[in-house]
Amino acid sequence: MADSEVLPSLAGDPVAVEALLRAVFGVVVDEAIQKGTSASQKCHYSIQKGAAFLGLGTDSVRVVKADERGKMVPEDLERQIGMAEAEGAVPFLVSATSGTTVLGAFDPLEAIADVCQRHGLWLHVDAAWGGSVLLSQTHRHLLDGIQRADSVAWNPHKLLAAGLQCSALLLQDTSNLLKRCHGSQASYLFQQDKFYDVALDTGDKVVQCGRRVDCLKLWLMWKAQGDQGLERRIDQAFALARYLVEEIKKREGLELVMEPEFVNVCFWFVPPSLRGKQDSPDYHERLSKVAPVLKERMVKEGSMMIGYQPHGTRGNFFRVVVANPALTCADMDFLLNELERLGQDL
Amino acid sequence: MADSEVLPSLAGDPVAVEALLRAVFGVVVDEAIQKGTSASQKCHYSIQKGAAFLGLGTDSVRVVKADERGKMVPEDLERQIGMAEAEGAVPFLVSATSGTTVLGAFDPLEAIADVCQRHGLWLHVDAAWGGSVLLSQTHRHLLDGIQRADSVAWNPHKLLAAGLQCSALLLQDTSNLLKRCHGSQASYLFQQDKFYDVALDTGDKVVQCGRRVDCLKLWLMWKAQGDQGLERRIDQAFALARYLVEEIKKREGLELVMEPEFVNVCFWFVPPSLRGKQDSPDYHERLSKVAPVLKERMVKEGSMMIGYQPHGTRGNFFRVVVANPALTCADMDFLLNELERLGQDL
Repeated sequence: MADSEVLPSLAGDPVAVEALLRAVFGVVVDEAIQKGTSASQKCHYSIQKGAAFLGLGTDSVRVVKADERGKMVPEDLERQIGMAEAEGAVPFLVSATSGTTVLGAFDPLEAIADVCQRHGLWLHVDAAWGGSVLLSQTHRHLLDGIQRADSVAWNPHKLLAAGLQCSALLLQDTSNLLKRCHGSQASYLFQQDKFYDVALDTGDKVVQCGRRVDCLKLWLMWKAQGDQGLERRIDQAFALARYLVEEIKKREGLELVMEPEFVNVCFWFVPPSLRGKQDSPDYHERLSKVAPVLKERMVKEGSMMIGYQPHGTRGNFFRVVVANPALTCADMDFLLNELERLGQDL
Repeated sequence: MADSEVLPSLAGDPVAVEALLRAVFGVVVDEAIQKGTSASQKCHYSIQKGAAFLGLGTDSVRVVKADERGKMVPEDLERQIGMAEAEGAVPFLVSATSGTTVLGAFDPLEAIADVCQRHGLWLHVDAAWGGSVLLSQTHRHLLDGIQRADSVAWNPHKLLAAGLQCSALLLQDTSNLLKRCHGSQASYLFQQDKFYDVALDTGDKVVQCGRRVDCLKLWLMWKAQGDQGLERRIDQAFALARYLVEEIKKREGLELVMEPEFVNVCFWFVPPSLRGKQDSPDYHERLSKVAPVLKERMVKEGSMMIGYQPHGTRGNFFRVVVANPALTCADMDFLLNELERLGQDL
């Protein structure tokens, strides 16, 4: 099951593909979508949605294989590009992911950037979830190669816990690309005869018109916490996730989906009636029904909220994302104790 | 200069044109954009932007003539549709406006709906600015015919002064169209095995993923103010705009752009040196330089902020939008006195 994508899509990013194609590649949408093949493989949510929204069509998105940890396989990326070109399509963009939603996987950006460089493709990195890791000297190696991206999406409202919404699109470009893509020179808003430098009016670069000043809360938080304060948040989240993982390993009836490399801790709660029954034919079917029952119980008790989901061939498992800077080891203990309490009769 | 638009565009609305075309009209984007002609006329900001963003291309937007008050001319709409069809294009959407940005004009919706009905076109009404007028028994006639629209966009964050952002898209459709357009069934978010009716999970109907609950503030405000409280806000805004207009008429050196029908009050401040010189050849050129100078002065003094803009062949004029429910007649007096004070030496 792939967690990473190629072709085309800047997803929810405020870069109109049409304008981008014209400005950067000199091609028009018709060329880019021609002979888009049907990709029946399931791929990440916002990419398909973005392709539909931007008029490229979901069929123009090709899914690249991911390894068992959810990381894009660069060799398959190269293969997909070759196949697309052979079919007469015009590949133009690769979207890699730093911190996938479920497993928290980081794609191998250096190897992907090499492929993009060989084929002249725009490298977009969806670092919405994992981008904040750059603030940690200890963990930033997970994003090695991101400096080669043409564009990066980053949501400080995720791991940094800035208020919703706070999203940044970072570009390598220095040619005022966003203005060239989106500028519409609405004369009632972007007057050129102002008394100050109108280059400071950035509103014409974005898709929206009336909107909140989303960057202000990030700036204020950064001023208040400092580089070190934010780094501490990241490092603490990693440490707390590690604590949770070790506690899960110690307890009976809890099984990790995999050893995490980020702060997404994915695991099954195996209830007493299923312990030691891994070999029975209906084990996985019965196990996948446990998380929804526990979720219902915790919501009705009002004690906590933990998300669950299936993933590829894996049945429903819990995913604890350790991000809130107010969390402590005691909260992790409570979480596991509460799961055991709620599921003891299952 | 047109203030209204046809073909295609749901602009910033959360309906992907591709999906809409497939779901409602059974056509694909390629057909809709074929032989899109170049429209060189200037038209409303978000419509062109939306067409670019959605991959339809700005050339597929055709501008319909507006009368001298900025209202769409239904006869020209009919003519444009005929021309588009003759060129092999596939018209599918008419975007009318209830409350244009600058002049505050309301398009004649009944006549436009007749045209749309004859040609089987989707009628979208951009009531972002003017939609709140429906809450006033006295003024809601401005929107007569809006009940015939297929979709309506409404921003309570404008005239009702709800906090940014608060935008609604209202649909005639009862077939769960938004879900059919945008639904992507992300299994990590929209689990079907929950203990409650999952039809209550509306997240899969929208384009965005992580976002604020923008409807909550509208609901709270409505509960706090009631229908009557909100109606009072609208009626008061109209009354205050009327007061401002009458004051403008009384004073020397202030000239209305036109008698407003909404709360947009557009006028020129004619400084002492230009009074009585309407016939001199450089009058309009000199007049259009006045507003930027006054804007600079008011900003530097910190006394007020009034927007200005050119519009069609008209040079820069001020536009006071009377919407804040805390405004009083004294504020209107201050505004005009302050303009006179700041501009007395010009």
